[in-house]
Order: sequence, then structure tokens, then C-alpha cells
Amino acid sequence: MMWSKRAQEIESFKVMDLLARANELITQGRDIIAMGAGEPDFPTPPLIAAAGVKAIEQGLTKYTPSTGIAPLKQVISHYYLQRYNVVVAPERVIVTSGASAGLLMVFSLLAEAGQNILMSDPGYPCNKQFLRLVEAQAKLIDVDGDTNFQLDPQLVAQHWDEHSAGVLVASPANPTGTMLSKDQLTKLADAVSSQGGTLIVDELYHGLTYEGDAHSVLEVDQNAYVINSFSKYFGMTGWRLGWAIVPQPAVELVERLAQNLFISPPTISQHAALAAFLPETLSELESRRWQFKARRDALSQGLSALGFKIEAQPQGAFYLYVNAEKFTDNSYDFCWKLLEEEGILVTPGIDFGRNDSKHMIRFSYTTSLENIHRALARLQQCLAQHS
Amino acid sequence: MMWSKRAQEIESFKVMDLLARANELITQGRDIIAMGAGEPDFPTPPLIAAAGVKAIEQGLTKYTPSTGIAPLKQVISHYYLQRYNVVVAPERVIVTSGASAGLLMVFSLLAEAGQNILMSDPGYPCNKQFLRLVEAQAKLIDVDGDTNFQLDPQLVAQHWDEHSAGVLVASPANPTGTMLSKDQLTKLADAVSSQGGTLIVDELYHGLTYEGDAHSVLEVDQNAYVINSFSKYFGMTGWRLGWAIVPQPAVELVERLAQNLFISPPTISQHAALAAFLPETLSELESRRWQFKARRDALSQGLSALGFKIEAQPQGAFYLYVNAEKFTDNSYDFCWKLLEEEGILVTPGIDFGRNDSKHMIRFSYTTSLENIHRALARLQQCLAQHS
Repeated sequence: MMWSKRAQEIESFKVMDLLARANELITQGRDIIAMGAGEPDFPTPPLIAAAGVKAIEQGLTKYTPSTGIAPLKQVISHYYLQRYNVVVAPERVIVTSGASAGLLMVFSLLAEAGQNILMSDPGYPCNKQFLRLVEAQAKLIDVDGDTNFQLDPQLVAQHWDEHSAGVLVASPANPTGTMLSKDQLTKLADAVSSQGGTLIVDELYHGLTYEGDAHSVLEVDQNAYVINSFSKYFGMTGWRLGWAIVPQPAVELVERLAQNLFISPPTISQHAALAAFLPETLSELESRRWQFKARRDALSQGLSALGFKIEAQPQGAFYLYVNAEKFTDNSYDFCWKLLEEEGILVTPGIDFGRNDSKHMIRFSYTTSLENIHRALARLQQCLAQHS
Repeated sequence: MMWSKRAQEIESFKVMDLLARANELITQGRDIIAMGAGEPDFPTPPLIAAAGVKAIEQGLTKYTPSTGIAPLKQVISHYYLQRYNVVVAPERVIVTSGASAGLLMVFSLLAEAGQNILMSDPGYPCNKQFLRLVEAQAKLIDVDGDTNFQLDPQLVAQHWDEHSAGVLVASPANPTGTMLSKDQLTKLADAVSSQGGTLIVDELYHGLTYEGDAHSVLEVDQNAYVINSFSKYFGMTGWRLGWAIVPQPAVELVERLAQNLFISPPTISQHAALAAFLPETLSELESRRWQFKARRDALSQGLSALGFKIEAQPQGAFYLYVNAEKFTDNSYDFCWKLLEEEGILVTPGIDFGRNDSKHMIRFSYTTSLENIHRALARLQQCLAQHS
């Protein structure tokens, strides 16, 4: 068997092995508190689900235009005006098969083979794999609490090289939940543009913010590329639907990529997503946001009190990325111990990079407040035993 | 703006421009007979649609395992036993976001950057683009009626070079509808294996065959890769669901690719597809197959009588790929003329390659027998006027 180097270099997520074991334990009757997932525990909002059902019943199950149905582009465009006060022509809205498809298309558009895109470590692990797929690479830059786990103009200037094509940031970020202010986005956009590069912003967790709304990079830079999704805020993970906003001159090339690589995004999901921006849906999502905030506050206070270090206060998403150096120098083993002994499923830092990841653990607060308190009680007992 | 060479080289489908114009004409009230599409005109079978509705109502809308839910792998595995008498372990079934995702993963697994995969011209146009994406390439081999528009061992031996990693064939093929017999598959598998390469077979149109069932390459070569889809035979285009069968040793690498590139296939579609293999669904699909056969026969006889040359009798899929040299040396312009003057939408040969494509046109018989007869009458009038 002959396999490509690129395929052999692609890494699996360690949390998948933990998840498989957790499912085994659940089958055996163990009570597992799941804080490993990158998806909300809430169901898809009812009006979105109902619109999906209606689409099937109406037979709306054929291919669509490759970058999405016109009415969905229209409502997304309108959302940018309403929410960010930014004019985005509907044709610049590229509806995608999840943010994954958006990332693949934007990276393959911007990064020549051999070129690199700057991004932070820790970060969303698939980003580097999309670049590897097209024989380009992620240039990973260690970040820490000093820059709120985000890239800044100094880091960009320091790490930019002759092979760099652009910079990717995420706000709010996975796994740290930190955000970039409008001023920080402006300065980053200037820094990238002064190098002749392109700024890509992962805005997947917009809406899930707890200290004020997130700003879109499009408020400050109309040449930037935005990656977004219906998965996280809108609760549509399994529907596999996202969108990208691309600059006008890139629209035609991205359409060709979409035609060839995906034919079209899932049709039923597109019709369902038309209900995502209805006032009733948005009001349901706002109430979920406040539940997430209460969970974040409880988990953050609880973990800090136990001795986990939170190096930058998370302002969004549904993750806490904590330093467990007080307890372990091998957070991967520590995660296995938490699962086997305490029935708590969390994600080891190694899944998000190499930057001090042996000390880091990601807790997702995608479970009830009650479960969070139960998890904290189990942790307290476990750490007391071992200290 | 700086874009990668790979993105700039990706071609759009010419039929998309024709389709856009057809939609304009329809809006203006013109009666357009659509024979351009690569999707069945039939709706998704009722039990599949109902299973999709039920999945939404039951809240089955979260991420699934990256290569598909276990019950779907199980029924697909069972289908191979039942239909082809071939044992395929469920873990070798990789459920994908349409065949597109399967093609991307298999090509990126097998073709190193700089390597090539042999395939026929004419052929499905996206294949070469998936390879271009990963900095590999399609080595296109002109085929004609002499080999039934298929690759054979001689062509493989003749065109295989030091950079070749494998061979892709399709049976039934798009755009020609021709098939490979079990004996031909065996000989091709031997030819590829004797070069140390891998055979990939596009079996998307299995089920849509009119002169006897198609054989799967897995009947003769368990090391081959199969690409398949719920789109064509099962009438699920917009659901974006397919599958690949990969050799056991490749399973883990393909799972990693799937995790990173797609997270998971659309969840509702997966639950819906569980109803695809129910006897009632299969019996509905069989009745559609006989309708397609009647359309093929009428269209094939009609076009031949008008002077279009059909160089190899199509045994499957829902396409006729005809030579229009009697009428034109520019089939692209001819397609525009057919649309504007006769209201018939068909696909120019240029969308399927460079091999005599200026004479070639693809007619899809994805419209009613009545429409096919109307189209033939319009063609007769048009060609009489111009001769």
C-alpha cells in the first residue's frame, strides 16, 4: 500500500479515543459528565427544525447553486447590515458545507503550495490540516496570556516571512474563548496588509459572547475573509452548514472551487437556516447565551478555586482552556485519569497544539449547570485524594 | 489580491452559464426542456424523506462519528453481501458528504504531490480538480468507441509512467453511460496491480443499468477503492451523502482525513439513508429504472435517426454522449443555439474534456418521456431548417 506523505502526516484528535472509551463506559452504565465536545448540548431551535421538515415535505431536496440559494445569501447579507452595520453584497456570501468547507476553499485560494498562513498555537487543530492538504502550511506562533492568547501586530511582524500569504485569527477563539476588540482587529488588518498579505477571521463563535458583542473584521477591513457557521450559535452542528464572506473580486474563483469540490451545500439545511434569523429563533438563542454565561462563570470560579490556572479570561465560545501544572506535567494522562476515575470527559491540550500543551486541558461547558457543579465536586474529591 | 495558481486554474462548468440563461428564459415564460442536469428528476423516495423528517423530529441533528453512524455502515455492508456477494466489514464503509468528499479523500490519500492518476477523457470533470487541489494531477487518456470509452489494460500499460499512482475508471460512466464487465474489471485490476498502483472505481451509477446489473470492482479486487453515492440511484442529490469502500489497512488514515476535513457527514441525511435499502424503497427505485430505460431507448433512437452519432451504446447512468459533427464543429455554440432557439438545455462536450469535445454533446434523460419526444420534434424542425 502506498499512501501520500500528506495523508500519513494528518493527526487524529486524541479526544476521539477518550470519547470512544467514554461511550464504552456509558454502555457499561457509568455516569459520564461530557465536557469534551465542540458542540452545544441544546437542540436545534424549533423554528429551524420545522423549516427543515417543511423543506423535505415540499421536496426541496435537489442540488442548489454551488454557493447557496439566493434567499439565504440575502438574509445573511441583511444580518451583516443589521448586526454589524456593514454592507455585504449577497453574492459575496458563500454558503458552505460547514465552516470546514469554507476553510478549505479560502486556504486553497490564498495559499500557494509551499506558502504559509500564520496562526496561533493553541488553535483549532484542523486549520493546519487544510493547509497541509494543499501542500501549504500553517506557521504556528506560540501565544499566551500576555496577548490574551491572540496574535497581535508585533507577532505578525516578527514571524512574517517571504513565504507567508496571510494570517488567520479567531474571535472568540477555540480553545481559549478570548476575543479581539475592534481596535485590535483594525491594527491586525493594518499589520497584515502592510506585509501584502490577507487576513482571515474565524467568527464561528459570534453570538456566544458574554462581555459584549463581538466585532466582525468586515467592520474594519472589507478585503478580509470571514469564516462562519450555523453550527455553534445557531445549534446546527449535524446539519453541516456554514458560510464565508469573501471580497468581491474573489467571488468567481470561490464559486468555481465550490462547484468542483462540493457541487452544493446540503439543501434541506439551507432551507432550514432561513429560519435562523427569525426574531423568535434569535430570542431563543439569546436565552441560551445567558445559560452559557452562567455555566462559564460557575466553571471558571470552580476550577480557579481548585487550583487550575486560567491565564486569560474567556469572553466567548463555550470553552475554558486551563493550565493544570499544579496537578500534572502530562495533561493527556490526566484526562484519561479524569475519565476512568471520575467519569469526566475533557480534551487534552495536545489536540490544540504543542505550546505548553502538556499542562493544558480544555473544558467545554456544553452541559448543564448541575452537571458542572457535579463535575467540580468530583474534581475536588479527586484532587484532595492525590495532594 | 494574490490567489494561488491552483485556484486560478480551476475551471467552471460551461453548462452553468447555459443553466443561468435557461433560468432567465423560464422567468420570461419560455418553455425550456431541461436535459442538462446530472441529477434525477424524480423526488427523493417517500420512505427516505419520511426517515429524514423523523430524524429532525427526534433531534438527531448533532455531529456523528466522522465516517458515519454505525447502523448505516452496517446496512451498506449488508448491501454489498446481498447484491454483490462480497464481504465488506462495516468499518471499511466510509460514509461521506457526497461522493465529492470520497473523491477528495481517496485522491489525497493515494496521490503524492507531483504524482498522477490515469483517467479517461471524456470523464467527470471534477476528478482532475480534486487532484489539482492537492498538487497532484489527472493524466487524461483519450478514449473512444473502440474501447467503449473506457480504459483497458493496453491503455494503462501505454500511459503509466514513473509518476503514476493509480487508475480511476467509472462504470457506468459519466458522460458516456458505458460499463465495464466483470472480466474487464479483473483485467484492469491486474494491469494496475502489476504496475504497483491502485485502482479506484466510481460506482455512482450502479442501479441505473439497463442491460444487466453492474459488477463492483470489489468482486474481483479487495484492494481497490470504491466511490459511491446516494445521489443518483437513490435520488438524494441535495442531501449530500455518499460512501467510499476502502481497504482495511487504509481505514485509520481515511478516518483521520474525514475528522479533519469534514468533521462528519450530514446527520439527518445519514438517518434518512437508513431507509434507502428497505424493500419498498428499492421497489420504487426499480420502477424508476425502467422509466429511465424507456427514456434512453426513445432518446437514443430519436437522436440517431436525426443524424447524431452514438459511438458506444450506453448501458447505464442517465446520459447520452453524442457526436454532432454532422451539424457543427463547435458544440458549445450549438448548445447555445439549441437553448436560445429551441428551448433545449444540454451540456457541451467541453465540460467533459478536450477529446473531440468540439463535436460532442451530453443529453441527460432526466426528464419525462413526453418531454423527450417534444425535444426530438424541436430538434427535427431546427435541423431541417439549417440543412
